[in-house]
Amino acid sequence: MYGGPRIAIDAMGGDSGVSAMIAGASRALRKDPSLRFTFYGDEPRVRDEIERHKDLPSAIDVVHSPEAIEPSEKPSQAIRRARTTSMGMAINAVKEQRADAALSGGNTGALMAMSKLALRTMPGIDRPALAALLPTLGETDVIMLDLGANTECDAQNLVQFAVMGSAYARCVLAIPKPRVKLLNIGTEELKGTGELKDAAALLREADYLAFRFDGFTEGDQLSRGQVDVVVTDGFSGNIALKTAEGTARFVTDLLRRAFKSSLRSKAGFALSQPALNLLKVHLDPNNHNGAVFLGLNGLVVKSHGSASPKGVANAIHVAATMVRNDITRKIGEDLDNFRAHAFANGTAA
Amino acid sequence: MYGGPRIAIDAMGGDSGVSAMIAGASRALRKDPSLRFTFYGDEPRVRDEIERHKDLPSAIDVVHSPEAIEPSEKPSQAIRRARTTSMGMAINAVKEQRADAALSGGNTGALMAMSKLALRTMPGIDRPALAALLPTLGETDVIMLDLGANTECDAQNLVQFAVMGSAYARCVLAIPKPRVKLLNIGTEELKGTGELKDAAALLREADYLAFRFDGFTEGDQLSRGQVDVVVTDGFSGNIALKTAEGTARFVTDLLRRAFKSSLRSKAGFALSQPALNLLKVHLDPNNHNGAVFLGLNGLVVKSHGSASPKGVANAIHVAATMVRNDITRKIGEDLDNFRAHAFANGTAA
Repeated sequence: MYGGPRIAIDAMGGDSGVSAMIAGASRALRKDPSLRFTFYGDEPRVRDEIERHKDLPSAIDVVHSPEAIEPSEKPSQAIRRARTTSMGMAINAVKEQRADAALSGGNTGALMAMSKLALRTMPGIDRPALAALLPTLGETDVIMLDLGANTECDAQNLVQFAVMGSAYARCVLAIPKPRVKLLNIGTEELKGTGELKDAAALLREADYLAFRFDGFTEGDQLSRGQVDVVVTDGFSGNIALKTAEGTARFVTDLLRRAFKSSLRSKAGFALSQPALNLLKVHLDPNNHNGAVFLGLNGLVVKSHGSASPKGVANAIHVAATMVRNDITRKIGEDLDNFRAHAFANGTAA
Repeated sequence: MYGGPRIAIDAMGGDSGVSAMIAGASRALRKDPSLRFTFYGDEPRVRDEIERHKDLPSAIDVVHSPEAIEPSEKPSQAIRRARTTSMGMAINAVKEQRADAALSGGNTGALMAMSKLALRTMPGIDRPALAALLPTLGETDVIMLDLGANTECDAQNLVQFAVMGSAYARCVLAIPKPRVKLLNIGTEELKGTGELKDAAALLREADYLAFRFDGFTEGDQLSRGQVDVVVTDGFSGNIALKTAEGTARFVTDLLRRAFKSSLRSKAGFALSQPALNLLKVHLDPNNHNGAVFLGLNGLVVKSHGSASPKGVANAIHVAATMVRNDITRKIGEDLDNFRAHAFANGTAA
């Protein structure tokens, strides 16, 4: 590869705006000096922030964007401002192959709509999906998709998500044959919606693909480390992801209360602190930041709006890993393979 | 009230079977001596267990049931064995008004199907829902429904769940005007499925009802204590409930690992233990055991299959509280009220 992955960064997105995005890029560059960045945003503000990070200037370009997408802006309105906004211009850089991936911490719905319009879905993909990594008790994280790009999904969508999610697992988790499960409300074959049962039937037949379909799983199994890719519709996926985030925060809030409840427990906390810091690292959402839109002709990564510089650096790392592993090509090959077999067997929809 | 709530108990359901059910009943009776139990199950085994609990015999009856429903039995098959199984006979006791509520720790799908067939849905309710209490950071628990009785729901179902859930909140949490929200993947009005948007529109108009509709909420807000009743379809509700259970266990497993990781943290754990026990109590699913089928002409409570005697006692307490508060009548009044207004305004479906 020429210099290294070229990342187009929407400098205006995210709750803490320019400063977290640029501090995150600086952090990412220290770890991986071959990275190349172009920042899109209000140029004077971006340049001001860049001044604070001495390692940055040689590696970066800044492109002035007169506008930014608002956090509550409707996707239908956002797509009309693709050419003048930092988000739209970053995506456009991927479309015109001036960048290998785009990164934004802004409005997810707008990012999705603009990316879909500019980059189009890959041949064989009806709808792109949003995928992310979640922590588990096992050796590696688990990938879950879709996390909210598609409120309702049919069986074909779910099968395509399985193909995309397992390509992602091969690239990012380095698992040669990922274990894939469908999220359901029970593990028996008769459980769940018609779409889930149909998707399970299609996946059971697709044993020539580079993953192992293991049937259904339930919400309480997500973090047990028994599955590599969990496939679901965007509504349930979003509910599961946010419920997991909320519950982790709930338990740690209770823990904090418990430790503060007496002098004795405060002393216990002080003693246990080094060990508890490991727990904190494991649960810190910044260490899992970087959700990916899969299924487009180009890479777009969503950073959490409230991500710290560490979180932004992690999302940049996710983007760079996908570029280096050429994930778009891997998904394409798996899809071709799936369609060739499905047509041969007469089971294509 | 005559003697006190009469509870019909399926002694054969649940993973640990007869012993947990009867030990739980004994525990419940010590707390609330006015309770009256009838156990349905294999009579010799039930009598053996009862022998171990000296406080039980005066308050209880045993009715022999020749069969029991299997954990994996299909609901369609189970309903044919209503007259000969411990689960079916307990439900039938409610139907024939020999009991005020039925309790089972067995197969949820079978319990639902049998209850619906024997007790029928209340006038104005199209589908019953499964409701339970979840812990929060606030003063009281939050009620969530549906938790899995209905895989797909329309707007009318969701509105009926809101009415039932808020009646339940008034009875069990003693909140005069509960705050009700719909679970969604965003809080903006344009988010989510058509069913959710329609249900929100209907609920916003129903300001004469004994609850306050507060719009949409997301998975990460369930445990924040900002809402009393969370309404959702059975698929999403089940995913959210199980993800919350799984994540709580995940965090406490990580915590256990952290405490065991060094001598120093072990000492810290020993010091903090009394405080950590409070956390354990707060998160123990047995303290939240007892999911309720709402919307039937009679009360049926589902105890978790793996509930301890403490958990079973808690589920019995839930059943008794509902009987004492005459929840079926309260739901009926709210529904009549809703329909009267809806017809007057021409918005009834």
